[in-house]
Amino acid sequence: MKKFINAPEDVVREALAGVAAAHPDLRVDLENQIIVRSDAPFSGKVGLISGGGSGHEPLHGGFVGRGMLDAAVPGEVFTSPVPDQILAATKAVDGGAGVVHIVKNYTGDVMNFQMAAELAADDGITVESVLVDDDVAVEDSTWTAGRRGTGATVFVEKIAGALADEGASAADVAAVGRRVNEASGSFAVALTACTTPAAGKPGFDLPEDEIEVGVGIHGEPGRRREKLKPAKEIAAIAVESILAAKPMAGGDRAIVMVNGLGGTPLLELYILYGHVAALLADAGVEIVHKLVGNYITSLDMAGMSLTILKADDELIRLWEAPVVTPGLRWGA
Amino acid sequence: MKKFINAPEDVVREALAGVAAAHPDLRVDLENQIIVRSDAPFSGKVGLISGGGSGHEPLHGGFVGRGMLDAAVPGEVFTSPVPDQILAATKAVDGGAGVVHIVKNYTGDVMNFQMAAELAADDGITVESVLVDDDVAVEDSTWTAGRRGTGATVFVEKIAGALADEGASAADVAAVGRRVNEASGSFAVALTACTTPAAGKPGFDLPEDEIEVGVGIHGEPGRRREKLKPAKEIAAIAVESILAAKPMAGGDRAIVMVNGLGGTPLLELYILYGHVAALLADAGVEIVHKLVGNYITSLDMAGMSLTILKADDELIRLWEAPVVTPGLRWGA
Repeated sequence: MKKFINAPEDVVREALAGVAAAHPDLRVDLENQIIVRSDAPFSGKVGLISGGGSGHEPLHGGFVGRGMLDAAVPGEVFTSPVPDQILAATKAVDGGAGVVHIVKNYTGDVMNFQMAAELAADDGITVESVLVDDDVAVEDSTWTAGRRGTGATVFVEKIAGALADEGASAADVAAVGRRVNEASGSFAVALTACTTPAAGKPGFDLPEDEIEVGVGIHGEPGRRREKLKPAKEIAAIAVESILAAKPMAGGDRAIVMVNGLGGTPLLELYILYGHVAALLADAGVEIVHKLVGNYITSLDMAGMSLTILKADDELIRLWEAPVVTPGLRWGA
Repeated sequence: MKKFINAPEDVVREALAGVAAAHPDLRVDLENQIIVRSDAPFSGKVGLISGGGSGHEPLHGGFVGRGMLDAAVPGEVFTSPVPDQILAATKAVDGGAGVVHIVKNYTGDVMNFQMAAELAADDGITVESVLVDDDVAVEDSTWTAGRRGTGATVFVEKIAGALADEGASAADVAAVGRRVNEASGSFAVALTACTTPAAGKPGFDLPEDEIEVGVGIHGEPGRRREKLKPAKEIAAIAVESILAAKPMAGGDRAIVMVNGLGGTPLLELYILYGHVAALLADAGVEIVHKLVGNYITSLDMAGMSLTILKADDELIRLWEAPVVTPGLRWGA
């Protein structure tokens, strides 16, 4: 294993120290291992937090800022944050209007966010939870009961964050987050496995001429292994898999993300995006906004994920609202 | 080789088609293989262009837009663009105030930009050139006579672009670009080689426990190979190498970039940034702005580069000016 680290057990703490040094707009609580907007909490504004295992950066810490998250709670690499951490973040962003938890559907995350929500309720803080389970590849997996939460998390954080910024109630912020999740589908393909610092070797074996079709963001198995295919065919598999689970019709509008899993050059992501755009145009779907780049990664995995959100006027308006975070920024 | 491509010879053309589909603010001329601001040329504004071999994305195409480049000229992967391409871009952005070429110091790029400048002069277009040679690792290399042009290119494009946006003359825009280059130093370390689509295998062999210290962005040899070291020591080598070539004193201000070469997780870049920030603080240098992420890459290479610009009031003001490009965006 070759990585720019010191000791495997210090990776997350030292990366957080780097975040603290790089982003004075963020307050990094190294003891509780949480990243909070330095100007939080906001009186009367719903607090929005998300979290999960580290190794998916910029998700979640890179999306803390105006118009998106108020705090992020990173666990160790590929390990859920603990309830006390989540509780500390919940308290840090509570401005009296309640807090919304955005939780990717992994067993550990769901359990620990639930416990934190109960502890917060004991302290008189209203918590609404949004469960993200957009990955259409498999119904159950090694890390999850039900569908995994992946790329739609970026969309939920952006759109719910914009509605929170407008002063909506916790119930309404959570409702729009759930609506984004329902309207989204994701599908990922891996060319290589990723290597966690603790394991020191790739998480699974993938022959030199095979790809994992429908892979999870921790390297969980997908639907099947296939021989390496041209980018055009891989894009078609992803688009067809998503539309089979989340149908769209001619005239529908979409927000699309072609995401790199960490080890894939931007050049390849743009090749894939060109194919995705052509396929959706053939289906009569209009892409109104898109992201092409690394937004939710799996450490150094070479791979891509596609997320398609069927959007309406409200979701598009909230997408276009200003956002100022290290990982996503426009309009301000 | 596993990549999201169709055929190696189509990579750049197909990626450009993806850029065209993704970014309606950009006009992609697929025949000439150039990326131009869709609203260029601007009457009376100096046109700013850069280019070079593909494989370093987001550089250069991702930096076309308001406040930065007017056009980018991508060659094939790791191959200089040809004079006709550069000439076409020069003409496309000429608004009557002249055009500035930003050229990384590689033999092919220098020769072809020079030829294009002469052809443009024949057409009555004034061209000023800025040569970027900020890489302090080696004096000559396999691709270059003199120092290589690397990370400072991002700084030159941003700062010269801001001055062009203010309506400065071609001579002044070029002068500030040269000043940024002079005041910058870069140093890179590779953990792995990268694989070009045409070669289909890694560009050099690096044992599982060794790193290339002072590597170039095409995998050119650096100063030496060493055993893998902790991130803290690698950061120190980079900082010390840059400050030895471009000294800074207590009280100086810097703009810093910790850049990923394509296959390195953001988590590791933040660990490195934390060490860089501590080392510069120890030297009494104040970091006024920073970038942490993938800005100038080497396809899928696992590696990092550090660039430090000794900044003054004017450079800081121009850095902070609005920029709206796919790869860099703030203030608008």
